[in-house]
Amino acid sequence: MKDDSLDEKLNILAGLGADLRNRDFLLTWEHSLEEIRSVLLAAKCLRELYEAGRSIRVFDTGLAVSIFRDQSTRTRFSFASAAAALGLTPTDLDEAKSQIAHGETVRETAVMISFLAEAVGIRDDIYLGEGNRDMRAMAAALQEGYERGVISRRPAVINLQCDIDHPTQTLADLLHLERHCGGLDGLRGRKFVVSWAYSPSYGKPLSVPQGLIGLLTRFGMDVTLAYPEGYGLLPEVVELAAKQAGASVGAFRVTHDMAEAFDGAEVVYPKSWAPMEVMRRRTELLRKEDRAGLAALEKACLEENFRHEAWHCDEALMKRTAGGSALYMHCLPADITGVSCPQGEVSREVFERYRLETYRQASWKPYVIAALIFLTRLPDPVGSLKRLGEAGRTRIL
Amino acid sequence: MKDDSLDEKLNILAGLGADLRNRDFLLTWEHSLEEIRSVLLAAKCLRELYEAGRSIRVFDTGLAVSIFRDQSTRTRFSFASAAAALGLTPTDLDEAKSQIAHGETVRETAVMISFLAEAVGIRDDIYLGEGNRDMRAMAAALQEGYERGVISRRPAVINLQCDIDHPTQTLADLLHLERHCGGLDGLRGRKFVVSWAYSPSYGKPLSVPQGLIGLLTRFGMDVTLAYPEGYGLLPEVVELAAKQAGASVGAFRVTHDMAEAFDGAEVVYPKSWAPMEVMRRRTELLRKEDRAGLAALEKACLEENFRHEAWHCDEALMKRTAGGSALYMHCLPADITGVSCPQGEVSREVFERYRLETYRQASWKPYVIAALIFLTRLPDPVGSLKRLGEAGRTRIL
Amino acid sequence: MKDDSLDEKLNILAGLGADLRNRDFLLTWEHSLEEIRSVLLAAKCLRELYEAGRSIRVFDTGLAVSIFRDQSTRTRFSFASAAAALGLTPTDLDEAKSQIAHGETVRETAVMISFLAEAVGIRDDIYLGEGNRDMRAMAAALQEGYERGVISRRPAVINLQCDIDHPTQTLADLLHLERHCGGLDGLRGRKFVVSWAYSPSYGKPLSVPQGLIGLLTRFGMDVTLAYPEGYGLLPEVVELAAKQAGASVGAFRVTHDMAEAFDGAEVVYPKSWAPMEVMRRRTELLRKEDRAGLAALEKACLEENFRHEAWHCDEALMKRTAGGSALYMHCLPADITGVSCPQGEVSREVFERYRLETYRQASWKPYVIAALIFLTRLPDPVGSLKRLGEAGRTRIL
Repeated sequence: MKDDSLDEKLNILAGLGADLRNRDFLLTWEHSLEEIRSVLLAAKCLRELYEAGRSIRVFDTGLAVSIFRDQSTRTRFSFASAAAALGLTPTDLDEAKSQIAHGETVRETAVMISFLAEAVGIRDDIYLGEGNRDMRAMAAALQEGYERGVISRRPAVINLQCDIDHPTQTLADLLHLERHCGGLDGLRGRKFVVSWAYSPSYGKPLSVPQGLIGLLTRFGMDVTLAYPEGYGLLPEVVELAAKQAGASVGAFRVTHDMAEAFDGAEVVYPKSWAPMEVMRRRTELLRKEDRAGLAALEKACLEENFRHEAWHCDEALMKRTAGGSALYMHCLPADITGVSCPQGEVSREVFERYRLETYRQASWKPYVIAALIFLTRLPDPVGSLKRLGEAGRTRIL
Repeated sequence: MKDDSLDEKLNILAGLGADLRNRDFLLTWEHSLEEIRSVLLAAKCLRELYEAGRSIRVFDTGLAVSIFRDQSTRTRFSFASAAAALGLTPTDLDEAKSQIAHGETVRETAVMISFLAEAVGIRDDIYLGEGNRDMRAMAAALQEGYERGVISRRPAVINLQCDIDHPTQTLADLLHLERHCGGLDGLRGRKFVVSWAYSPSYGKPLSVPQGLIGLLTRFGMDVTLAYPEGYGLLPEVVELAAKQAGASVGAFRVTHDMAEAFDGAEVVYPKSWAPMEVMRRRTELLRKEDRAGLAALEKACLEENFRHEAWHCDEALMKRTAGGSALYMHCLPADITGVSCPQGEVSREVFERYRLETYRQASWKPYVIAALIFLTRLPDPVGSLKRLGEAGRTRIL
Repeated sequence: MKDDSLDEKLNILAGLGADLRNRDFLLTWEHSLEEIRSVLLAAKCLRELYEAGRSIRVFDTGLAVSIFRDQSTRTRFSFASAAAALGLTPTDLDEAKSQIAHGETVRETAVMISFLAEAVGIRDDIYLGEGNRDMRAMAAALQEGYERGVISRRPAVINLQCDIDHPTQTLADLLHLERHCGGLDGLRGRKFVVSWAYSPSYGKPLSVPQGLIGLLTRFGMDVTLAYPEGYGLLPEVVELAAKQAGASVGAFRVTHDMAEAFDGAEVVYPKSWAPMEVMRRRTELLRKEDRAGLAALEKACLEENFRHEAWHCDEALMKRTAGGSALYMHCLPADITGVSCPQGEVSREVFERYRLETYRQASWKPYVIAALIFLTRLPDPVGSLKRLGEAGRTRIL
């Protein structure tokens, strides 16, 4: 892939004319292609500057607040890395230590944590039907607080994974694909497979496969979604993917045969997720704190999963892909057979061959988050990038 | 309220001649009126600069340590926001992760966390008779360490709520009142009511009502403290309030009738707290880790509280206030009937009408904390504020 | 001790010619004497600059990641202090909140947390035979990631205490000794005793005594290791100490008589640790999550400890030291008889006499950690120190 110079990238970015200022980033498909491409370009510029030893600090001070309602390593560190690189102080709202459990409303909390904040990153992927909705409630509270003069700045709400989408992951994935395919145009017609894969765990969110079909169908890819009967995704996202594939002159289809899906694939993304129905019932049981019900649901779900343990990305399956050498992708951590579990999503051999590639895929995430903060919070993002490149400080003083 | 320009505020601040350098801030009534007014002025200057887009960073590096012995959202974020805005790195001493539980003394810990620190903010409101005392022990250890050359700087100890006072809250409250009443002089003779209110919870500290009567009686307000028999505050603080009201030509009285207290009130602050005797017994039981005793105490306390569930700030009560339109204040989170609990301190209607006002009240806290660090740690605070205003950097670089 | 000027120190530092760039710091004895002396000098320069009010910030942004697999106050704050003072954002990988427990491999995690990091500090002292090994696995993963272009910078892995060594502690101890003895040359021939002492706790790591004999025998000290039979240290470290003592024309011996060890001692470091065999069995039982086994082991160990409760550093013992006035040292927290436990490592009288000295000893740790990051991460550390001294910013702006 020929890599445009920083100046060229900035010219393209300026030409796109996208304006994300004072906005949130909650679902990729709420944003125009120009906006998506602007995020990718800004992420690449920030990375190029950082790796060339320039400081990308654009804030002298300010907070970047994170709220994690699920465990996280990668996203947590990506958010902290991005915030710190821009000059913000990453601060976690640890709900166990806060008074939110005391019946405090989301709306109040939103304002209380935001008086001096530039961004609020939220991971809320456990409760189906609630995660994204709650992010919107928080965003609305900030908007009200801003409009009514309670807070002087309006922090951007950034979706760090919800029940519907995982935009910082899928945009990192898209940057990895862009590099792999020699540019976004190189994605056109490429056969991409996102497939369910067996894992001895339950409750994994649907946001990654949904986010992938909701994003990649906009770039003319030939997208196949494969899963065992009963593991379908949110119908509205599947419909959206089909519609977008039509508009982008790409393709989108669903199959229930992993091997067939892999035939001729150029990129494969085998990953486990829970059946939607399980996520729905789990949400209800969690709300009721019904431990016995949760245990029973987990048992039933694991048994059901186990009926599909053949959904395993091994060398035999990889041989069916285009030239036997499709790109393997994963958002990590993967359930690797014989490494992290007795039987998982991917064989040790396949994973090991692509291990460093999955790390490269992940390496984009801090820059995607930095780009989102950059584009939503700065008055003149292109001008700021230009200044960082021209006259900016080095990161090591 | 006419708002003085930054220059005018700085002239007044310089004229006050207060000197908080190298001191702690543990109880408002240990500080002269000039010192209190200096904190208010500095907070207003810092807010004005920040909201005008100036950086208020005065430290290139340094730590601001927080110790929370009780849950906290607002104060935690206010402290982190203030520290970060001044250029300090907020760092929490999480006692669960530290070795303090290993029998380490307060005195040693104070020094160990302070080698490169500028401020130590402490919330310690659970143990009646101990919170403020322990802050003083920490301050004394830092003083000894500083005088004996163990630490080269003497961080300021800042009370983020103890068993006696909650100065960063009440100073924020005072700034809100100042704005509401058109200046500090506007507080003279105004009828302010701090009233107990029903809540289905127990163990809420006495520090807010104590802090309010201990501060507002110094500004000539006509202060009424209302509570059901048995819910009295620390006698020494009540005596202090009465004495101060005399000196400031204000008034202070106690009543056991909420409705009567509200008659003609211009500002009301209805809030639950635990009976002092309950806090005392709870402290003993917590020390003994007597779970059965604690459960019994909680049950008895909740039953006693429930006898006073009529202490509820509703529209009927608000109608009795001056012009039916007293300012409602709360330190948040409020126990809102039908929102955060079935029956609480305030009706949904009343709270909703004043909701954004309570957020504005809270919005002062980060600036109060920043002002306290600023005034205790900088060699020439007025000069520093002047420089920030004249030649300072913008916060967005 | 005459204290060289900053210029003199920098000349000596330049003259040593040590090069720690792009390296880790895992065991002191893996580093040449020139490297050790460079760390000491850099720590002294950084402290001198900081205490003179200069900023020692050399990074505009960047992360410093810490991983604590054991409770920590001192080391946690020392790491955060050092990171913040250099301009890095301290970020803790809290394994309870991360997905490491989900079977994620160390190798993957290492890369995921390091995309924008300069240093990874690790405390991993619970599992005998594993702590240092796991640090090396993490360092190897970072090296691979760096060489294969996955991460653009190679953060330094810094041992914040493992099963073998505790280099940031022992280097702080060495700086304290250097000051006490009027320079490193003053250590030659001085009688230093590191002695086991009774504590009513079990499971204390062996890393401090091991680290001390592994470091101080290189400086010509006359080192005595005293412990009751059965409390021996790792044989390879003891052998190393003996060998090093020979090479440095110092001395090293082992005794099982605390009183005899104290005879004529000039410095004593009485401290409890667990028998190696207990640590080994404990590691196995922890891995098996064998709670009953762990409880039984603890009971047996405490009983065995109690047989040696006479190993107590009291005034009678101190009288036997050289002039009755040996320097008492401890890494803190000490188990002080009648203060932190009924019967511990040291009497209240002895500890109180040396309390501030132990604080001074601890005060070096932030600067040691800062020096390690400085020397491993900067392209021209001596030049950077020179610039900080000449034209650097003040820390208060």
